[in-house]
Amino acid sequence: MRLFYKCKKLDFSSGGESIVVLREQEAENQGINPGDRVVLKWSKNKTIIATVEVSDNKVDYGEVGLFEEIWKKNQIDSEDIVEIMFYSRPESIKAINKKMLGKKLNYEEIYSIISDISTGKLGTIETTYYVASSFIKPYSLDELYFVTKSMAECGEKLNLKERVVDKHSIGGVPGNRTTMIVVPIIASLGLSIPKTSSRAITSPSGTADTMEVLAPVDLPVAKIKKIIGQIGACIVWGGAVSMAPADDIIIKVSKPLSLEPYDKMIISILAKKVAMGVDFLMIDLPYGPTAKVHSLKTAKQIAKKFVAVGKRFKIKVAVEMIEAKQPVGAGVGPALEARDVLRVLQQHKLRPKDLEKKSIYLAGKLLELKGFCPKGKGQKIAEKQLKSLAAWQKMQEIIKAQGGNPRIKADEVALGALNYEMHAKKAGRVVAIDNKVIEEVCVNLGAPREKLAGIHMHCRVGDQVTKGQKLYTLYAQTDGRLQLGLIAARNKAVVRIGR
Amino acid sequence: MRLFYKCKKLDFSSGGESIVVLREQEAENQGINPGDRVVLKWSKNKTIIATVEVSDNKVDYGEVGLFEEIWKKNQIDSEDIVEIMFYSRPESIKAINKKMLGKKLNYEEIYSIISDISTGKLGTIETTYYVASSFIKPYSLDELYFVTKSMAECGEKLNLKERVVDKHSIGGVPGNRTTMIVVPIIASLGLSIPKTSSRAITSPSGTADTMEVLAPVDLPVAKIKKIIGQIGACIVWGGAVSMAPADDIIIKVSKPLSLEPYDKMIISILAKKVAMGVDFLMIDLPYGPTAKVHSLKTAKQIAKKFVAVGKRFKIKVAVEMIEAKQPVGAGVGPALEARDVLRVLQQHKLRPKDLEKKSIYLAGKLLELKGFCPKGKGQKIAEKQLKSLAAWQKMQEIIKAQGGNPRIKADEVALGALNYEMHAKKAGRVVAIDNKVIEEVCVNLGAPREKLAGIHMHCRVGDQVTKGQKLYTLYAQTDGRLQLGLIAARNKAVVRIGR
Repeated sequence: MRLFYKCKKLDFSSGGESIVVLREQEAENQGINPGDRVVLKWSKNKTIIATVEVSDNKVDYGEVGLFEEIWKKNQIDSEDIVEIMFYSRPESIKAINKKMLGKKLNYEEIYSIISDISTGKLGTIETTYYVASSFIKPYSLDELYFVTKSMAECGEKLNLKERVVDKHSIGGVPGNRTTMIVVPIIASLGLSIPKTSSRAITSPSGTADTMEVLAPVDLPVAKIKKIIGQIGACIVWGGAVSMAPADDIIIKVSKPLSLEPYDKMIISILAKKVAMGVDFLMIDLPYGPTAKVHSLKTAKQIAKKFVAVGKRFKIKVAVEMIEAKQPVGAGVGPALEARDVLRVLQQHKLRPKDLEKKSIYLAGKLLELKGFCPKGKGQKIAEKQLKSLAAWQKMQEIIKAQGGNPRIKADEVALGALNYEMHAKKAGRVVAIDNKVIEEVCVNLGAPREKLAGIHMHCRVGDQVTKGQKLYTLYAQTDGRLQLGLIAARNKAVVRIGR
Repeated sequence: MRLFYKCKKLDFSSGGESIVVLREQEAENQGINPGDRVVLKWSKNKTIIATVEVSDNKVDYGEVGLFEEIWKKNQIDSEDIVEIMFYSRPESIKAINKKMLGKKLNYEEIYSIISDISTGKLGTIETTYYVASSFIKPYSLDELYFVTKSMAECGEKLNLKERVVDKHSIGGVPGNRTTMIVVPIIASLGLSIPKTSSRAITSPSGTADTMEVLAPVDLPVAKIKKIIGQIGACIVWGGAVSMAPADDIIIKVSKPLSLEPYDKMIISILAKKVAMGVDFLMIDLPYGPTAKVHSLKTAKQIAKKFVAVGKRFKIKVAVEMIEAKQPVGAGVGPALEARDVLRVLQQHKLRPKDLEKKSIYLAGKLLELKGFCPKGKGQKIAEKQLKSLAAWQKMQEIIKAQGGNPRIKADEVALGALNYEMHAKKAGRVVAIDNKVIEEVCVNLGAPREKLAGIHMHCRVGDQVTKGQKLYTLYAQTDGRLQLGLIAARNKAVVRIGR
């Protein structure tokens, strides 16, 4: 529908933007919202784009008010007739409509959606339709690539000159802090590995929370680039860097329904890797009843897509699928996990062997993926970097560059916490350790906000225990929190002892 | 995840509601929003439901604050430990999730969704997912019935004792004001026909806008029931009656994407008829390039669903599919349409014959549907009611009951408007009249807000015209609006003359 209005010169200036004022009811009837952009057309050669404001006292029905920016520059007089193109809807809306009808989208269409989500041009309702539309018809490999690329294009990028390696652990396994060991191993060999990590949402700690025990993690992009230039590595919080901003908005509208399709996970992870400029990527994909991915079969399907989409970006991706039956390492909670990490890096006699072994394994595989060494030789090299304390020296550089204390000792990080030991009520074999219950107890103890809170495990699945033997210790910062954690721990079994 | 907190008695009272105060960050981590309802559990026998508020100064981490309503009634002390069930999500959320995964829903599930939308328990994002989910898998007939029933159940109902007939015109054809003629014909025969109509959204007039020229249309339910009890008919604005309130909310989230699946239209119309207690329903479903439904084939599919869903409610539905190539009647715009209606009812010599004929046809079919007379006899009866002015007398009762002037004459309603005649530039035959252009011109003239604005057609498709003959007249309330309408009319042809 073509609509014509009489112009009214307003004595208002926006300081730059072209603003056209419509009567509220008239705007609403045409489906125009404040902030929408419209085309004003006086003649073939005189058209401008303006932003809509609505008002019921500045203009009458049949009139539009023009800010000075419009009428001065374009020599418009009051009483001039202008046409307003009401129906020029953003391309992105058309694209979402198309996807809602089950059709495939091309790159331009997907880019328009992601770009308009990033800049707020599409609101909550439109973004929700976009998320919902991926359920109408699953993404093709092309579409997965287009979405990932658009996500990366629409945010900040690191633009490093060096070739970059990276590792990424998919969540759901408490204590899985291999990142903080793999990164210094890799960097100590002269490879660039700029690592952004996430904070816990519902779990007791994310890598960023644990690293924060040792050094600040919310650094701006410029600082990250400087650190990478100097020492080749960092371990920072991804949320402080505005990479792939559409991802956060999409996560927000996904929350009310807890929709988390695996495709969304692949896009979310890879978009940030593309923005980081990663060339070689090792993905640690644990599976098991309490992990994000429940079966090996599903893990394999996801792995295949990771590799295929990565290939389109010339990122060499390898996925390690390891079953998760218990925590990795002994500690769960920011400080207790940081202690485990330092114990491994400092080759402390109480270091958790499983965390050390998994880190060496992943670091070795990453070295082989990069072509740093022949296949089968990576783990030996990684192990040597740990044993020689070269990895620890690199970690000290990272801690120092990010603003922490590089002389910290493993046994210093959890000092000052209250603790309470839990003992075996009978003799037998540890048949199961429940990751979900561990998380529940740790959150009730105050983790991750209270850094010292958490659990330290003294046993592992398969161990023989005697009656009264220490099974695990609860840590808390206050007596009240310790009490809440104890209630949670007595409610469901952390450790199950059988024959 | 089970979460435990220490209670803190707060010296606040809500005046009735049980309110529990959580630390903002703790609520957010658990996906709890202010206003959510949670279960507080002290022991097996002591549990209550409370509404969440968040605050960062009333409570500390690890604590929850309790309003007086909770701690006085339940004898709770500060320091008592309470468990909060965070994960009890509304049934409706689970149901939307289920539908998003392409599964069918039962009545209880659909009712929970519609009820929670109606009461605002589901927000904009959740409602958007619900609308989107109907695209994942089209509604089954059962689901269509369940949604319609839930919509009607969740709003006001008329609960009339009499058996009720109704007609409903599906929009898109300018001037199609048969409702205002059919209703008095039917009511003049002693049948109950309480009619709710809509206002224009983007078109120059809706039935409610046109009726408003003659009498107020925003009446409360109690007044409507009283009028029906006295005279058996009314013509009011449906928006003033809170029937099927979920429908309005769903329409709002559908707007940004202009999603209007036909199923949604069927639900929206039938839900209101169910709430009105309609027993016999005649649907006027015009089809054509500018109507809502574009082809006879689609019209037939829709008709079949209308009949099938209606049957589940024991509503006898008949659908009349008539091709729409030009406006019905001569006038378009509230006052000009009202003039046409009055001319037909008052049997004025200038009455539009097509509007009269279509009204008699629909009224006759409705009488036959009701079983008021044998098949083939309805039109004769309807025509008699018009010719004898019995229908006009009934309309006078309706106008009076709603608060208008029952002595109004047809030629009085459009008095005082400015007008401008458009003439044929050449001789020939009228080959087309463009409904879309007519609407465009009328809206530019100020309709429906300016009641006198609109177009009166002097020709119809098929007429032979001479050069200079009057084709149509523009009406406006102000000179400025007349000018805007003229620009629109000169931009695209309203009437196309050929050989």
